[in-house]
Amino acid sequence: MNSTPAPPRTEPSSVSLERYLRAVHYLAGAQIYLRDNVLLRKPLRAEHVKDRLLGHWGTCPGINLVYAHLNRVILRDDLDAMLITGPGHGAPANLANLYLEGSLREFYPELTHDTVGVEKFVREFSWPGGFPSHLYPGIPGTIHEGGELGYALATAFGAAFDNPDLLVACIVGDGEAETGPTAAAWHGTKFLDPMESGAVLPILHVNGYKISNPTISGSMSDDELHALFTGYGWQPRFVKGNDLSASMAVGMDWVLGEIRGIQRAARSGEPIAQPRWPMLVLRSPKGWTGIQELDGKPVEGSFRAHQVPVGDVKKNAEHLRLVEDWLRSYRPEELFDEHGAPKADILACCPRAQRRMGCNPHAFGGRLRRPLHRPPLAECAIEIRGKKRGEPEEGPINILAKYLAKVVVQNPSNFRIFSPDELMSNKLGGVFEAPTQRNYQWPIEGDDRAEHVGPRGGRVLEICRSSF
Amino acid sequence: MNSTPAPPRTEPSSVSLERYLRAVHYLAGAQIYLRDNVLLRKPLRAEHVKDRLLGHWGTCPGINLVYAHLNRVILRDDLDAMLITGPGHGAPANLANLYLEGSLREFYPELTHDTVGVEKFVREFSWPGGFPSHLYPGIPGTIHEGGELGYALATAFGAAFDNPDLLVACIVGDGEAETGPTAAAWHGTKFLDPMESGAVLPILHVNGYKISNPTISGSMSDDELHALFTGYGWQPRFVKGNDLSASMAVGMDWVLGEIRGIQRAARSGEPIAQPRWPMLVLRSPKGWTGIQELDGKPVEGSFRAHQVPVGDVKKNAEHLRLVEDWLRSYRPEELFDEHGAPKADILACCPRAQRRMGCNPHAFGGRLRRPLHRPPLAECAIEIRGKKRGEPEEGPINILAKYLAKVVVQNPSNFRIFSPDELMSNKLGGVFEAPTQRNYQWPIEGDDRAEHVGPRGGRVLEICRSSF
Repeated sequence: MNSTPAPPRTEPSSVSLERYLRAVHYLAGAQIYLRDNVLLRKPLRAEHVKDRLLGHWGTCPGINLVYAHLNRVILRDDLDAMLITGPGHGAPANLANLYLEGSLREFYPELTHDTVGVEKFVREFSWPGGFPSHLYPGIPGTIHEGGELGYALATAFGAAFDNPDLLVACIVGDGEAETGPTAAAWHGTKFLDPMESGAVLPILHVNGYKISNPTISGSMSDDELHALFTGYGWQPRFVKGNDLSASMAVGMDWVLGEIRGIQRAARSGEPIAQPRWPMLVLRSPKGWTGIQELDGKPVEGSFRAHQVPVGDVKKNAEHLRLVEDWLRSYRPEELFDEHGAPKADILACCPRAQRRMGCNPHAFGGRLRRPLHRPPLAECAIEIRGKKRGEPEEGPINILAKYLAKVVVQNPSNFRIFSPDELMSNKLGGVFEAPTQRNYQWPIEGDDRAEHVGPRGGRVLEICRSSF
Repeated sequence: MNSTPAPPRTEPSSVSLERYLRAVHYLAGAQIYLRDNVLLRKPLRAEHVKDRLLGHWGTCPGINLVYAHLNRVILRDDLDAMLITGPGHGAPANLANLYLEGSLREFYPELTHDTVGVEKFVREFSWPGGFPSHLYPGIPGTIHEGGELGYALATAFGAAFDNPDLLVACIVGDGEAETGPTAAAWHGTKFLDPMESGAVLPILHVNGYKISNPTISGSMSDDELHALFTGYGWQPRFVKGNDLSASMAVGMDWVLGEIRGIQRAARSGEPIAQPRWPMLVLRSPKGWTGIQELDGKPVEGSFRAHQVPVGDVKKNAEHLRLVEDWLRSYRPEELFDEHGAPKADILACCPRAQRRMGCNPHAFGGRLRRPLHRPPLAECAIEIRGKKRGEPEEGPINILAKYLAKVVVQNPSNFRIFSPDELMSNKLGGVFEAPTQRNYQWPIEGDDRAEHVGPRGGRVLEICRSSF
């Protein structure tokens, strides 16, 4: 991340941000329900509704809130930022943002900002040949599989390594937070050197419910969550309350200040020992701003908002009315002009060109690929001719280790070894013939008790994982 | 666990405990090194040493300390207790305790308490046809695979469910603590009803090093560990300092008091909401009491103590002397009589019969197996004859759910459903046709926001896991 913010640019006003949020909430809800009349220019009728309702509304408003505020600070500070969306089943939210910022149009030229384009965009969600209901790397800006809960946070760390100017925001849903891979990945900052790598900004999105069950995080008090993440080594800050957008604005600004402080210290040669990175805990109602109640039972703020909040829409006139009232509550007529184009102040909330999170080159591996220099294999050849039967030779893993040591030397900022079962245990200790070590940011006892480990410059990362 | 301690029995004196610890430390070290002269009645010579040295010394002393103090309270309070040893590569420690308490002899009658028995016992470790270097369920008292790091804590919870009088102690090594499965399993108390299930007592053993690298927990301050486990919902207490046995005694007594308080409240009909169970964090030097130094570098308290602390013993006279001096430091001549039998006061530190952790019936599934009542399949048959082609039928998973609902009813304390990917998502919601629910001990918001979940009586446990 740029350690000094660029001169202030046009930061969207809170009025425009509120309108932007209404637009992406609307588009997310519309994608789940509508195949026609997608801007509700006419009264909603059953034939405007998709035959098969698919999608997950519950997590969408939180994703939108994060996306909008990341856009805000990207615009203001000219940030190089990308987003890993752990709850990738909330694809309607990401798609809505990608549509508005124009990233989709880079790949789907027909998704224009007009009536034809928006009709096609909304209909294409969960539609044969259209966009899937979960994120996957085929969606611009996405580098992980959003249907596989557990890996978002580790993926975010992977994206930040060796990209010092990159901010990798990562939404961790409170369902995903229950998984083992995520529970272990919170230790990631212990392996991230703020001098050579970028920042990971986790946003734990606590909306309290999974498909039908409360979440663990949702049942924990602020004190418990604060203790847990403090123990993991983070500085947690809560985004909550009646004005979530205002709270998110304050939280996001605080986060950037903390990140800049850590990075500035590291890069000025006076690194902070054991840096405590900032993170956000977003408490929002599940399906925030959605349908309030159905049949006397709450939908917003309950598990009922997880997927399609109200089903049986085509045959049940009451349900159809609920959906229409809800979608109209975003007042789409204020957000799109008569040609179906999003209003200018809403589009002005989006970053431009490669600053759009859907177009960040880091999300398109091929665009930033750097060649891996490989030493000639012959340098590591074993001469076997002339040896007698049974005469000892060097083991193949030892030779591999020597080869990898050369690769480390020739690719000083482009090659890392992730070692889930200990380099030494796997007989790859020869890697340390290179001037490298295991990078570790937390305190290590005296030099003679541990070897090949320290906070600066190591290309090896070791953390135990289960053998399975 | 018995909510009221039985009248005090013979609690071993601290003098005997110290001697017991010396005996098991000695036997653990001897197993790794010796094939002959195992009580060191003669000066140690190269031919007494095993040809291939295998085994992990580093974790052994900690396992011994835990085992000895569990024995102490089992004896004093007539506890029904078992031990899950996460660092199962420390098998020499468990085997030493199992030999002394006589559990091994139940299955290997030749492992007598005399010179012949102890010679055979020590030699058999990591020996063709003998005991393996890692625990596995073939070792008395063991119900998990000690070579697969990650699952010990979840296994301990599994053992405690529906066994209200059982105490399941679980050593979690600081290597294993880095794994995802363990990181998630700390939430286990949120699913354990102290009325119907037993207690899990985790002992996080922080000895600071893996095979060659510092551990994450070892690099965390007491404050960080305290915050982390408080956040998870535990009451952590540290066992550390110069007199580890005294600190462990105080810690173990405190633990039992806390457990009894939680269980007594739950079973008297006035359960403590959100019970905060006790746990211990044992900070010990790696390879505690072992060889101090080799070639000017520390062994005890460093990664060098992880496996065989000093190699090349048969050819290097200096190394041989180091091993002999170390083993003699336990003064085996004080611990075993002239017939090779452990002294009476040492044996008196062991519980008797089924109270021995190696003989606890809960560690032998077959001995406590209760029949699973299964309703006749015919009750859930689907009539397909007479149906027209394409006529809708009930899906097979729905039928399975109905069947499982009957199984739940017929096996009220003998059958649980562990649902890592949400019962509803897997279309098994029909299970809730039985009068059951998802058991969850932490606070749930108002009834109308979540269904089929609560702290009493539920036979379903849901926690998200990664799809992999």
